[in-house]
Amino acid sequence: MAPPPALSFAISARSATTGARVGRVTTLHGSFDTPAFMPVGTRGSVKGILPHLVAETGAQILLNNTYHLLLRPGPDLIAEMGGVHRFMSWNGPILTDSGGYQAYSMADTNSVDDDGVTFKSIIDGKMIRMTPEESIRVQNLLGPDIMMAFDDCPPSNPASAPEPGHSDTPSDAPADPRLARVLRRDHKYDHAQRVAIANERTVRWLERCKQAHTRPSEQSLFGIIQGGTDMAARSWCVERICNIDLPGYAIGGVAVGEGPEQIASVVRHTAPLMPEMKPRYLMGVGYERDLLAAVRAGVDMFDCVLPTRNGRNANAFTPTGQIRLRNAKFAKEQAPIDATCDCPACTPSRYAMKGPAGEDLPFFSRGYIRHLFMAEEMLGPILVTLHNLRHFQRFMADLRATIPTDDWAGFLHRWPVAAPGLG
Amino acid sequence: MAPPPALSFAISARSATTGARVGRVTTLHGSFDTPAFMPVGTRGSVKGILPHLVAETGAQILLNNTYHLLLRPGPDLIAEMGGVHRFMSWNGPILTDSGGYQAYSMADTNSVDDDGVTFKSIIDGKMIRMTPEESIRVQNLLGPDIMMAFDDCPPSNPASAPEPGHSDTPSDAPADPRLARVLRRDHKYDHAQRVAIANERTVRWLERCKQAHTRPSEQSLFGIIQGGTDMAARSWCVERICNIDLPGYAIGGVAVGEGPEQIASVVRHTAPLMPEMKPRYLMGVGYERDLLAAVRAGVDMFDCVLPTRNGRNANAFTPTGQIRLRNAKFAKEQAPIDATCDCPACTPSRYAMKGPAGEDLPFFSRGYIRHLFMAEEMLGPILVTLHNLRHFQRFMADLRATIPTDDWAGFLHRWPVAAPGLG
Repeated sequence: MAPPPALSFAISARSATTGARVGRVTTLHGSFDTPAFMPVGTRGSVKGILPHLVAETGAQILLNNTYHLLLRPGPDLIAEMGGVHRFMSWNGPILTDSGGYQAYSMADTNSVDDDGVTFKSIIDGKMIRMTPEESIRVQNLLGPDIMMAFDDCPPSNPASAPEPGHSDTPSDAPADPRLARVLRRDHKYDHAQRVAIANERTVRWLERCKQAHTRPSEQSLFGIIQGGTDMAARSWCVERICNIDLPGYAIGGVAVGEGPEQIASVVRHTAPLMPEMKPRYLMGVGYERDLLAAVRAGVDMFDCVLPTRNGRNANAFTPTGQIRLRNAKFAKEQAPIDATCDCPACTPSRYAMKGPAGEDLPFFSRGYIRHLFMAEEMLGPILVTLHNLRHFQRFMADLRATIPTDDWAGFLHRWPVAAPGLG
Repeated sequence: MAPPPALSFAISARSATTGARVGRVTTLHGSFDTPAFMPVGTRGSVKGILPHLVAETGAQILLNNTYHLLLRPGPDLIAEMGGVHRFMSWNGPILTDSGGYQAYSMADTNSVDDDGVTFKSIIDGKMIRMTPEESIRVQNLLGPDIMMAFDDCPPSNPASAPEPGHSDTPSDAPADPRLARVLRRDHKYDHAQRVAIANERTVRWLERCKQAHTRPSEQSLFGIIQGGTDMAARSWCVERICNIDLPGYAIGGVAVGEGPEQIASVVRHTAPLMPEMKPRYLMGVGYERDLLAAVRAGVDMFDCVLPTRNGRNANAFTPTGQIRLRNAKFAKEQAPIDATCDCPACTPSRYAMKGPAGEDLPFFSRGYIRHLFMAEEMLGPILVTLHNLRHFQRFMADLRATIPTDDWAGFLHRWPVAAPGLG
């Protein structure tokens, strides 16, 4: 009998009025339902959350950052420890990015050329050379189920407004520090030219990534479509990228500084041009409105640091928008974060969360959670991260339930925060 | 039918060769088995650990610090939120200390007189006056099952060697900063005189605490025996304190700077002088050797920050001693922290810890935990804290099992680290 393919994708239902579809991706480490939201486990850990609690939020696949794991503890160590699944005790599907985005955006010193990127390690200052071949070598050692191609992601259009960024780091730096650097370096910066160069590089580098990939029967390489907010550039890129036969494709280079309408425009233009029967992944997105717009355009997979990063900052997502739990008005609030939520903070009794005498635990009040943040207790970030992760998983589950019915009015009744995504 | 008493204590087994006994304390919020170890939840949270995970380690009662909760969020807010049990979502027994120890040891500015202590808040610099009446008023508002008397705990003998301290704070200050302050202030410091004054105050203040206590049918006040390392002073104090009729008594003023032999001497002298049929609590202790020595002397209750504080610093307890998980030699170690341990880090499959496909999770390797600490990931402190809490609960459970059999050789075979406590 032939071994199972490294990845298969089955579409089980479609929206009659939009491009949205419900499906399931199966990897050698199990399956995940689509549209899927992947929590970010930057350094091999979803910050502060035990893996079984991540699973209890409904997450079926995680994203790890190759850049961070490359710098520490290094891919050879992780390979020696049995690969990233065993290393972090998550036996379900894992996706890694290529490391390129962080190499451009996080390193103090970097230079991009036609062959790759050279950057300075933020850990020990060592100069590191990243090429398509090196990114794939590292991802082959890490061992995720889905690996992303090493691409050249240009900065967003200087005219765009900043939006929360892509990578799960403690920094509060502006969304796209590359832009400031580029503008500082080069007074004659020509955005259209930079996008064109990035597009060509991205296609050439994808061919090199595919060539370098040594474990295609275990790990699936996804190509990435660049092109910024220029629809002609996107069209050019999607055709060339999708001509290279791969198990899945991603839209990259969004949510790097442009506004929600621009994100939606790019996705509505690009997604329908991507292969119908392969998973479509929108990288680094986003808010509920962005997810709704992209799902309706036919996107299947998402990742974003919003639930985890905002959770650590006491910002809790609710169906009507975020609340800032440090606000003094919550000090004596007995209510849970969100009375409609079934997360371990809002409804612990739904989970195997028992008190010392085996009794169900009551919910954690907004007042208590505010106290935890004011006292700088770790349990505050933990509870709000758990809530936010569950919020996004409930949102995705409701999208999957809504797609076959096309009851988008009912959906927005439950998730008014997503209304701008109806488009 | 009469309401149940706020506290009852039943001894179910005794050691034939030592003073040790097995029992059970019952409060209005449930029971705990003795000898018992109480994890410390300083600010209304066992740092980084969800309450149901604290319960899963086997902890049946927690300690909260009145000093910290008085400063933030304040006892009125906690009372309005339904008391400390509801506030922190722990429905089992809770004990609070009096706030006195931290008022002496943590505030930059303080002065002790015959009526109480005045100290400066570390939160907002406000001057706070703490008296026996005020401590009891605050503890009546917080609502724990067991409240501790407000006592005068003198610094340890200047000749003593420093030992890890009592309070669960991030500071790495020496064990007893009061001593340095006292010595700085008063060149004619007379330790014996200071102990005598503290003893007399402690007795007078206990009478005032009992008088001020407004909820004796719900909360049990324990008296505290002081006396430093002077056995005559301990004898004087134990007689006077235990003449005041209360549901339980504690040995205070140990583990504030003296060595393990001195701790054991004080406990061996004092515990047998305490009422036989009431719980005996040794405050702020300690290492496994200290617990073993005190249990054999007839002590029933303990609290200490060692498992939580050391866990946050990557120091893991094992039956043969602590290991420092930041050490480079652990980088590639596949083994769990302790192969004999059944904690959620060493044996997650024993708990309701399932992966994304519902599968049992494997243990977390020493190599992975080291990586988490090197990368400053919160999950490192969480995993080692969980392990350490379980280590101490397993140690106590084994003590309870050993007491009726008197197989102390067998016990030390399983816990060689405790050997110096055999005495």
